[in-house]
Amino acid sequence: MTRVTVWNEYVHEQLDEQVKRHYPDGIHSTVAQAVTRLLGDGVEVRTATLDQPQHGLTSDVLDTTDVLVWWGHIRHADVADEVVDLVQEHVLGGMGLVALHSSHYSKIFRRLMGTTCSLMFRNLEAGERETVWTIAPDHPIAHNVPHPIVVDAQEMYGEFFDIPVPDELVFVSSFAGGEVFRSGCTFRRGKGRIFYFSPGDQAFPVYHNPHIQQVIANAVRWAAPAETQERVRWDRRRKDEINWFTNNDQQGVHA
Amino acid sequence: MTRVTVWNEYVHEQLDEQVKRHYPDGIHSTVAQAVTRLLGDGVEVRTATLDQPQHGLTSDVLDTTDVLVWWGHIRHADVADEVVDLVQEHVLGGMGLVALHSSHYSKIFRRLMGTTCSLMFRNLEAGERETVWTIAPDHPIAHNVPHPIVVDAQEMYGEFFDIPVPDELVFVSSFAGGEVFRSGCTFRRGKGRIFYFSPGDQAFPVYHNPHIQQVIANAVRWAAPAETQERVRWDRRRKDEINWFTNNDQQGVHA
Amino acid sequence: MTRVTVWNEYVHEQLDEQVKRHYPDGIHSTVAQAVTRLLGDGVEVRTATLDQPQHGLTSDVLDTTDVLVWWGHIRHADVADEVVDLVQEHVLGGMGLVALHSSHYSKIFRRLMGTTCSLMFRNLEAGERETVWTIAPDHPIAHNVPHPIVVDAQEMYGEFFDIPVPDELVFVSSFAGGEVFRSGCTFRRGKGRIFYFSPGDQAFPVYHNPHIQQVIANAVRWAAPAETQERVRWDRRRKDEINWFTNNDQQGVHA
Amino acid sequence: MTRVTVWNEYVHEQLDEQVKRHYPDGIHSTVAQAVTRLLGDGVEVRTATLDQPQHGLTSDVLDTTDVLVWWGHIRHADVADEVVDLVQEHVLGGMGLVALHSSHYSKIFRRLMGTTCSLMFRNLEAGERETVWTIAPDHPIAHNVPHPIVVDAQEMYGEFFDIPVPDELVFVSSFAGGEVFRSGCTFRRGKGRIFYFSPGDQAFPVYHNPHIQQVIANAVRWAAPAETQERVRWDRRRKDEINWFTNNDQQGVHA
Repeated sequence: MTRVTVWNEYVHEQLDEQVKRHYPDGIHSTVAQAVTRLLGDGVEVRTATLDQPQHGLTSDVLDTTDVLVWWGHIRHADVADEVVDLVQEHVLGGMGLVALHSSHYSKIFRRLMGTTCSLMFRNLEAGERETVWTIAPDHPIAHNVPHPIVVDAQEMYGEFFDIPVPDELVFVSSFAGGEVFRSGCTFRRGKGRIFYFSPGDQAFPVYHNPHIQQVIANAVRWAAPAETQERVRWDRRRKDEINWFTNNDQQGVHA
Repeated sequence: MTRVTVWNEYVHEQLDEQVKRHYPDGIHSTVAQAVTRLLGDGVEVRTATLDQPQHGLTSDVLDTTDVLVWWGHIRHADVADEVVDLVQEHVLGGMGLVALHSSHYSKIFRRLMGTTCSLMFRNLEAGERETVWTIAPDHPIAHNVPHPIVVDAQEMYGEFFDIPVPDELVFVSSFAGGEVFRSGCTFRRGKGRIFYFSPGDQAFPVYHNPHIQQVIANAVRWAAPAETQERVRWDRRRKDEINWFTNNDQQGVHA
Repeated sequence: MTRVTVWNEYVHEQLDEQVKRHYPDGIHSTVAQAVTRLLGDGVEVRTATLDQPQHGLTSDVLDTTDVLVWWGHIRHADVADEVVDLVQEHVLGGMGLVALHSSHYSKIFRRLMGTTCSLMFRNLEAGERETVWTIAPDHPIAHNVPHPIVVDAQEMYGEFFDIPVPDELVFVSSFAGGEVFRSGCTFRRGKGRIFYFSPGDQAFPVYHNPHIQQVIANAVRWAAPAETQERVRWDRRRKDEINWFTNNDQQGVHA
Repeated sequence: MTRVTVWNEYVHEQLDEQVKRHYPDGIHSTVAQAVTRLLGDGVEVRTATLDQPQHGLTSDVLDTTDVLVWWGHIRHADVADEVVDLVQEHVLGGMGLVALHSSHYSKIFRRLMGTTCSLMFRNLEAGERETVWTIAPDHPIAHNVPHPIVVDAQEMYGEFFDIPVPDELVFVSSFAGGEVFRSGCTFRRGKGRIFYFSPGDQAFPVYHNPHIQQVIANAVRWAAPAETQERVRWDRRRKDEINWFTNNDQQGVHA
């Protein structure tokens, strides 16, 4: 059983009529429902939003979250640093993180990457076609999705995308205007797994696309820590004795 | 259900009394029993050996093998090139390969790597201690193994190990003499997953070590293709039409 | 001083009038002249072609070649296996290899990759626009080239490109039809450096594009072994003594 | 001409007699002299220390620094966040960073990595032997160093080292006690290159070892940005027009 929390700043949907039509209960609800429908008994899904106390991300919530899905855009700056500290600690301890679309610029994603995470972009009113190509066909996140996924209307995100070299490059997108983008990237940080997936703007109903939903569900499954994995923060560990590891009590088990 | 075939040249065990004591029914039997015991109903395990017709690796066998475990040492040259061709084709099509110890020098491993796969080595009669350290603690192949695994007596394998840079470096070993070795490495080739794991010499009972067995079982589970994955050889694919992918029949699904 | 040999099968240019107009003295001459012009005194450039004895790639030539540039297309099968063996041995020993366009399907490139190296393609008579985007802006191969390089008319090469995960992904292209391709990839094999660069078809004058020439010149400089580097084939090395490395004569120097 | 600044917290050398004997003018002086001696006219080397205004790392200094070498240990917390911000910005803009030994725990290194950067350690009074093995023999940082480098007395640093997967793993060390450590790692962040190198404790005269000095000098040369490289902070770049890149003025050049 993977315990999933879908976090959303939930602002556009309350301010903009067009966005509200696409996501009447918020992007988080649409994503949460898709993950629930696709993964069934394998998951237990909650949501949390910016306006809740501690943005809905208390220690209690994070301690019982295996994978955190994140969507933010215009209110990144309003996420409290203390919450970002706590989320980072949990990711490094083994909690999975699935960062969607404009979350490339969220505090938590930038904190985990160490870079500016800037990119090139163009937002046409009518959108433009994005095609999402699988570069790692054996990767579990690419299972059961077409090659390519076609998103008829999207905001363009283009290179250079200022991230560390991904551990695995799963998807690369192109746009009608000719730009390319590393749209599906994995990163390991500490014991945690991170997946960044760029398709999905508030202005277009991208999260209703069944293939985009499939990718997010695959990513949730992939990012979940192993069942038996202990959630530990890596500390400096001092081993004064030579051959300490021949004493079984001192051997760490990466469960 | 993962269908596993454990292949062994099965020569030392029939010629050398010491090796026979360690592995009276051959290394393949010891490995097959361990995988069966650890993975239970999740696997169906067969064995195959060099002296069988086509070394036991006919199209029928390979077509029904999800993961091939390979052990060879002094008879690499006697493996028929036609069998190597067939195994390579199956790996590129999605069959997992777990290459053990001196299989670094097998035809199939070298074929898939493109390099000499040479290394430094020392074989003391009494062996020397190898400690196997986990470098990728979130990796499924490292689950439930101690940090480090201690193997009391082993043949030294040292760097430089002439392989391509691994996709993931899971284990690094050191030896009593001070040498280090990238002892657990993953590689993707085509749609197939490959794991090389160096501990395990015929002169020492390494494959009876429960932690070494755990790693091999983990690797079998990791290397298995997704259940729904089609076993395809990637062909050159010609797409004459622009926008061929808007015709759903032409979209490939990476299942 | 980097000694460069530009190899070309040199067939299309002698058979097809359109190709001959683009490359009257062969693609190898155009590439050799560009490298000479851009790198000046830093290089000494020769050419070799398929129809020469041993395809112009004798031990003498390879022993005095620091970087080999390769172009082949319809005559891959006619390259003798013995020559491929020799070239592979030299690459593993430290000679750089720059493989251009349809050379993805050459014997030597497939040998070094271990995969099918297949890809998707479309060859429209009028060609289609390719834009080549820099993904690794600090990489020396990307120096002094625009972002993107625009090639007005090209053959489409698309994913999935069945290669091992590149050590570095320098360029990604998109095509007017929407496809994407990892068009600039580095690989280390043995002590040698390999760069694959896809732009450049015989049907279009791509190798006259100054930016494409710049990339090839950059790649030649990048792939050249260090001046003091000894060209060695990695052999299995046996070290019988513990602490052999405290004897200075036995220490290898990676010069 | 590469402009190098060697930064040191410079505390142990003023407090501890043993350290003062090894480094009477500070670790920074020893390192600066070695780099100057080995790279000659190719470098211009300055030093800076914690107790200087703004720790000696003003905008003026950083604007004229191509590669920053960093040594810190017990005063990481006293480095001002504003200085860390400025150094990070310069690294992302193209300044090289060579982080030595206990600098794995410095604010700047952790900021750039996004992880805890914790590790295992043991500090015996007499030290213990470290052997540093080359894993990437073609890498410029490994040029002209023995395989292995033997450091007779060192503090043990062991895995798990909580860093992102390095872009390149150049060295792996083992210690007399059996532990292993990824002792030489490269990372790209933004346009900057980072090299972490673990040998070198204040309690032992490691920075007087000529091979350790060679590695640091190699790293300085490797981390230097290309001569013509513009120092830019990557900004979000908005491109409103389709085909903006056919207007040459808008094409970025990665010089």
